[in-house]
Amino acid sequence: MKRVGFIGLGLMGGPMAANIARAGYPLTVYNRTASKTEPLRELGARVAASPKEAAEYSDVVVTMLSEGRAVEQVVFAQDGLLAGARAGLVIIDMSTIAPDETRSIAARLSPHQVKMLDAPVMGSTGPAAAGTLGIMVGGEEEVFQAQRDLLGVMGKDLYYLGSQGSGAQMKLSMNLLVAAQLASLCEAMVMASKAGLDLAQAGQIIASSGIASNLISRKVANIVKQDYTPAFALKHIHKDLGLIVRTAESVGAAIPVTSLIHQLYTAAREQGHGEEDSAALFYLLAEMAGLKL
Amino acid sequence: MKRVGFIGLGLMGGPMAANIARAGYPLTVYNRTASKTEPLRELGARVAASPKEAAEYSDVVVTMLSEGRAVEQVVFAQDGLLAGARAGLVIIDMSTIAPDETRSIAARLSPHQVKMLDAPVMGSTGPAAAGTLGIMVGGEEEVFQAQRDLLGVMGKDLYYLGSQGSGAQMKLSMNLLVAAQLASLCEAMVMASKAGLDLAQAGQIIASSGIASNLISRKVANIVKQDYTPAFALKHIHKDLGLIVRTAESVGAAIPVTSLIHQLYTAAREQGHGEEDSAALFYLLAEMAGLKL
Repeated sequence: MKRVGFIGLGLMGGPMAANIARAGYPLTVYNRTASKTEPLRELGARVAASPKEAAEYSDVVVTMLSEGRAVEQVVFAQDGLLAGARAGLVIIDMSTIAPDETRSIAARLSPHQVKMLDAPVMGSTGPAAAGTLGIMVGGEEEVFQAQRDLLGVMGKDLYYLGSQGSGAQMKLSMNLLVAAQLASLCEAMVMASKAGLDLAQAGQIIASSGIASNLISRKVANIVKQDYTPAFALKHIHKDLGLIVRTAESVGAAIPVTSLIHQLYTAAREQGHGEEDSAALFYLLAEMAGLKL
Repeated sequence: MKRVGFIGLGLMGGPMAANIARAGYPLTVYNRTASKTEPLRELGARVAASPKEAAEYSDVVVTMLSEGRAVEQVVFAQDGLLAGARAGLVIIDMSTIAPDETRSIAARLSPHQVKMLDAPVMGSTGPAAAGTLGIMVGGEEEVFQAQRDLLGVMGKDLYYLGSQGSGAQMKLSMNLLVAAQLASLCEAMVMASKAGLDLAQAGQIIASSGIASNLISRKVANIVKQDYTPAFALKHIHKDLGLIVRTAESVGAAIPVTSLIHQLYTAAREQGHGEEDSAALFYLLAEMAGLKL
């Protein structure tokens, strides 16, 4: 069985790595904050002292990190993956980063015979724990085919989209839609509230209608209860919106609506809501409408 | 059994009136274009020569028209409903009009002891034919309760929201969400296409994800096939966006995202896409991105 490394044991990476361990793959993990490796050690994983060491023990390494710069660092730092890699190593980056970032990293790895897939995910912590994520993959198709078994342990729906960066691109298109559903839900709820409607009733009607997605149903509940415990932190959707706007510019697509939503999220973050759930954009719009909460 | 009048036998009103006839209510219909009354006549409905005549034969009259001005005309014209109404007549307006418009009409009817409900619907022609619309009702609660039987023939979910205009307000909040899902879907698909992704595959991934609503799944198909046969014409969502922006202004809610979407729809209409489906906003964004279709 192929030996697997896993870098980045956060809210998503932790349960994803656990599924790999439970599936019986020899697993070596690394995390900057060492305490998060404990649950994996209990599942039988080796704990490495650096990404380099994780690479030395692995045929394939999965990375699940917060942003492109972090991936670059993990790969190219002195004690990074490349320093411990031999020819034929595969890196599967499942972080949400920009298509040009993943292409740049893959290009720098190529002379070393290290292959890379960009494989960002759909779904939050629930599907990560259940192994039912959607996984959108870019890179060489034969590399993808050779990793289907491992990806299948983390995800239910595996989509191969094409060359390096295609998975990242698809993920950004998805998150554009996430942000738009959130922003429009906040506008609709603020308008309804200002007009004197009951927020709980308005939320119930929205959630039972033909425009309700799973996302909307969950976020309606956040707004009705004014409970912004983060499932997907506002600072993260803000970061993704920055990548989306930059990427749209680089491929030559004007996305005026998303661009405005990005700016609203910038404002919400600057108001101090970055660590709350992404639905906390409601605060900004409520304040702009003079709503007393 | 109460005698029912029905004014406005369009794509929505036609099947809604048919359900009333099939439920056994004595029905009198009126439509400006007389040919559309034929299917109702075949179901046993009386065909009136004017709204006035329809009111004379009815205890309750349903109106399903294109806009507020049309409702005002049908009610207050010389041969309008009021001219044929006696005290106690109930008018249920199921058109999508602004809250201030329905309040104004109700206020003018009040001295004549004619009651009004605003009762716009969720759902398009399919649910209209099946009698499974969602119906959002504003007006006096006892008037609503007395009309539950009739509303239940047209809709599955009946929501009483409060005073006159509350149903209209809720409907506008819903359509704000509809417009945002459409506009963001167009931006996501244009960006994906410019980046070289396959539109059919991107659409399939979107439609099977946690951000998919029934609406999004249907509209993805429109865009992938580039088939904009109207289920909900672009000129209608544009009209509704105008009402939404004006109503938000009057209740003191800033809705910057929706306001921008309204302007994009204005541009799409001016490019000649008004009679196509509302998803034809894709043309505008594709053109802005220099996409060859």
